[in-house]
Amino acid sequence: MRISELSAASGVPIATVKFYLREGMLERGNVTAPTRADYGPEHLDRIRLISALTNVRGLPIAKVREILAIIDGPQDDPVVAMGHAVAALPPYLAASGPGFDRASATAQALGLTFDPGYPATGQLESALEGLEQAGLEWNGDIARRYWNALLPLARDELAPAVAMTGQQAVVYAVLGTALYEPVILAIRRLAHQHLAEGRPGS
Amino acid sequence: MRISELSAASGVPIATVKFYLREGMLERGNVTAPTRADYGPEHLDRIRLISALTNVRGLPIAKVREILAIIDGPQDDPVVAMGHAVAALPPYLAASGPGFDRASATAQALGLTFDPGYPATGQLESALEGLEQAGLEWNGDIARRYWNALLPLARDELAPAVAMTGQQAVVYAVLGTALYEPVILAIRRLAHQHLAEGRPGS
Repeated sequence: MRISELSAASGVPIATVKFYLREGMLERGNVTAPTRADYGPEHLDRIRLISALTNVRGLPIAKVREILAIIDGPQDDPVVAMGHAVAALPPYLAASGPGFDRASATAQALGLTFDPGYPATGQLESALEGLEQAGLEWNGDIARRYWNALLPLARDELAPAVAMTGQQAVVYAVLGTALYEPVILAIRRLAHQHLAEGRPGS
Repeated sequence: MRISELSAASGVPIATVKFYLREGMLERGNVTAPTRADYGPEHLDRIRLISALTNVRGLPIAKVREILAIIDGPQDDPVVAMGHAVAALPPYLAASGPGFDRASATAQALGLTFDPGYPATGQLESALEGLEQAGLEWNGDIARRYWNALLPLARDELAPAVAMTGQQAVVYAVLGTALYEPVILAIRRLAHQHLAEGRPGS
């Protein structure tokens, strides 16, 4: 298909498609004439993916580029790729943070290996600092409640990766990390509403 | 304390404190002399809260202002307040969306009342659209897996609100929605890492 058809099929304006091409986020089509290139379904898939990361996930373009680079890269270890993907997702932390006392205490309460080098550790520290600043409660018991809810879910989420090749598993790990998160938050918000409305007297 | 002490105690630059004052996000201190105002611990708490919402949660200043207005407002129904807070959190949706076919199908699979007027419904629709665009799986069984993990958690989260006054419950509902979310995402990411590293061969 031509670039105009690619734009129509994806719902993304031609100027934006051209921007993705210039930025190297989308591969150029097969040149069939001096002013004409041909695009296939793989280009359409790529645009939909960029769209999901920018519009739905709300990532800045620089972070989308990082995530695409992980997917395209030679990396075939999903665990390493997941770590890179996590670093490309908010919350983005100041480079010069203090220690990770809060995250470390939580890891200890959960009996986890504490790894300050993993991006999610710093993100947990930052999130716990936010609770503290707002005067919201956090302790080992509450941490365990979240862990007990999320660990089985995380296990189910990783299960399909076992049957995948290295590269497929990388893509699944990276996109799954980025794109199931908004789903989780929306479902938790709906659960709150569901419970609150069913409460007597509310 | 003076504004310089307030800045030192909160770690927020004086210029930023003055910005919060000008914007009406922080109440002015007691004027004790023509060029001097006195600030108390309630001002420090407020700055910490703004800091948690802007820096940790990463909300734009306009959305922080919305959340502060809900907390300060006359609203004493936590369910209504929670709805407003959810609308002030990402993902922010285009005003003119299509129908909510995906969210509606998920609500049906879970046996929930489908309420298109609730902000989280549109956010779920958008999140599910993101999965679809990226070619990630979603169906009734997967929806139930997330629901089963998140519903008991949501129930535990709401439990403390029962013992609170209307205004306290509003603050708890609003801040809890905004500030436990980054914690949930960080813990899920740590759970993935924990599971992936324990996997044989990885």
